[in-house]
Amino acid sequence: MQTKTSVDPIRWENDQLFLLDQRLLPNKEHFERITSLEECHYAIKEMVVRGAPCIGFTAIFGMALWVKKEELSAPAAVRAANYLKSARPTAVNLAFEVDRALEIINSFIKNFQMNEQAKENKLQLFNRLVNFGMETMEISYSNNLSMAKAAENELTSIYGKERRLRIMTHCNTGHLACGKLGTALGVVYHMHSLNRVEKVWVDETRPYLQGSRLTAFELSKQGIDFEIVIDGASSYLMKNKLVDAIFVGADRIVANGDTANKVGTSSLAVVAKHYGVPFYVVAPSSSFDLDLINGEQIDIELRNPDEILKFCDKNIAPLNARALNPSFDVTSSDLIKGIICEKGLIQPNYLTNIRNLLKH
Amino acid sequence: MQTKTSVDPIRWENDQLFLLDQRLLPNKEHFERITSLEECHYAIKEMVVRGAPCIGFTAIFGMALWVKKEELSAPAAVRAANYLKSARPTAVNLAFEVDRALEIINSFIKNFQMNEQAKENKLQLFNRLVNFGMETMEISYSNNLSMAKAAENELTSIYGKERRLRIMTHCNTGHLACGKLGTALGVVYHMHSLNRVEKVWVDETRPYLQGSRLTAFELSKQGIDFEIVIDGASSYLMKNKLVDAIFVGADRIVANGDTANKVGTSSLAVVAKHYGVPFYVVAPSSSFDLDLINGEQIDIELRNPDEILKFCDKNIAPLNARALNPSFDVTSSDLIKGIICEKGLIQPNYLTNIRNLLKH
Repeated sequence: MQTKTSVDPIRWENDQLFLLDQRLLPNKEHFERITSLEECHYAIKEMVVRGAPCIGFTAIFGMALWVKKEELSAPAAVRAANYLKSARPTAVNLAFEVDRALEIINSFIKNFQMNEQAKENKLQLFNRLVNFGMETMEISYSNNLSMAKAAENELTSIYGKERRLRIMTHCNTGHLACGKLGTALGVVYHMHSLNRVEKVWVDETRPYLQGSRLTAFELSKQGIDFEIVIDGASSYLMKNKLVDAIFVGADRIVANGDTANKVGTSSLAVVAKHYGVPFYVVAPSSSFDLDLINGEQIDIELRNPDEILKFCDKNIAPLNARALNPSFDVTSSDLIKGIICEKGLIQPNYLTNIRNLLKH
Repeated sequence: MQTKTSVDPIRWENDQLFLLDQRLLPNKEHFERITSLEECHYAIKEMVVRGAPCIGFTAIFGMALWVKKEELSAPAAVRAANYLKSARPTAVNLAFEVDRALEIINSFIKNFQMNEQAKENKLQLFNRLVNFGMETMEISYSNNLSMAKAAENELTSIYGKERRLRIMTHCNTGHLACGKLGTALGVVYHMHSLNRVEKVWVDETRPYLQGSRLTAFELSKQGIDFEIVIDGASSYLMKNKLVDAIFVGADRIVANGDTANKVGTSSLAVVAKHYGVPFYVVAPSSSFDLDLINGEQIDIELRNPDEILKFCDKNIAPLNARALNPSFDVTSSDLIKGIICEKGLIQPNYLTNIRNLLKH
């Protein structure tokens, strides 16, 4: 059942972290060697590594590298943690994983006197953090596989086991974002491992082109048949009956099932609903935010208009032009046929069904 | 009522044609001087000039330039016409206008002996063709103004006369495509001249960026407030109630009202329908093709995938990636609130209403 992996954006080898520089994809595959907290901070800030899960894993290894190099003390550890968090202040997952690493460090410092065995102690803590990073990646992989299997069952219930499907996706939710497998793209890899994918439709995902740059790169590495389309071509594809199912990720899912994800997701969902193409959100249970009742309560980050107005530092719009560049949009839950997390498929009547599933 | 024009892509001055080189927009405003049939062929082929109406006007002036320079004979005129048509073989409007110019030339040759007054005759024919080009542009402008006024009435009936509107458009259908005013964008200019436009939403229109490069350039020149968004942001805008009406052009409208237009139009129409935003097609009656019953009969040109895979000769997708690049899509007539041509607004029940209006 294991899906073959030939894209691995995070490697831990010889006590060093190697990060595939995602800024250079798809034109260049270069691994950046990270040997210190500072280099780790830089890699997160400058988006050498991206995707909430991958940023989290990277941060844990960053704290391990800090332990190895610096004098251990509780205040110093807090300083290191805050410094790392500041690399991308709005990334919830980064703070979450840094805090978990900090907890391990603090509990270690409490239980040991940093005396003559200090060096040996530090090595022990270093190894513990590295193992914690590895475990976190493994748990994420295991969750991704559970989601992919839930999606497999759902697709089988609609299309049977024989038919090879044409699956569409948006943005990048694969290895490059999640380490192993991925969420929405993990479904594609899993179905491909069962020889049940005919083709993947990759929309380019303007303005950052995560589709054409990153998802296409991954699929190409895995030898999966795909074609890129512009974001506006969704109606062309579905009107011509070329899409069997759509899978997307999520940045946040609120109590009623409304889902914030990369801008363009909501337009895709509306078009899918119009043509009756099943549309699924795939995200781990950590993406649910039940404190918010509906999507209107989600703040949408507005990013720099230059992402739209320029390309490779060249103006592609008049100099005085303005652009509105929301990073995410909200997909209304009535457009979503199912939300898949590691605990299984959640079907509409989301307000009740999400709470029920997450309780277990 | 005249809308001010500060973008004029086609100028006839001192017996020469000047074309605004649209390939260089928005970064450089350069007029290419055209003094021969060959230069005219080049300008059309290389897309110095674009937009069906503008290509047509250019072609008429091109035939005039040919008359001035070459020996007049019926076979030579046919050769010149065919050569000009070959610049963009699939452009229906190009062939149509070239044939109309050819008819004038042939009728002239029949009625005059090319003797000692040949030079004087040629000048007469040249002037006739130039006047024909001017007239054709004026008729197009007058038609555009009629469409804009029909749109004004429709908007008044929905929103009253006072409210300043937020209008969205796709691709480029303004001066740069149509000479004076434009079709869908002509509505914007007209409404702006009445101080009834609050803002224009311009989607970038991948892959060629006619929105951010050309429509934004025009609006910026005219001092009309606009913002560019990515094509996928349509649901974000309409869910947040930021759009009052959408106007798009048409490449072909068939008997039941199904409309072929730049890819992305159909996705936009689906999203508009979902959120109840009125969606209009604006095109002259010459865009109707009543020989086709419905949109399924329209052939959609597939363009070079490199338009999606490359940007300014730089790869933005993996080297072995494929892309599907339909130039147009078909918007189902049930998504269209009204079709506006120079004869007025056509409302649903298009099969009957289109035929009835076009008969007059």
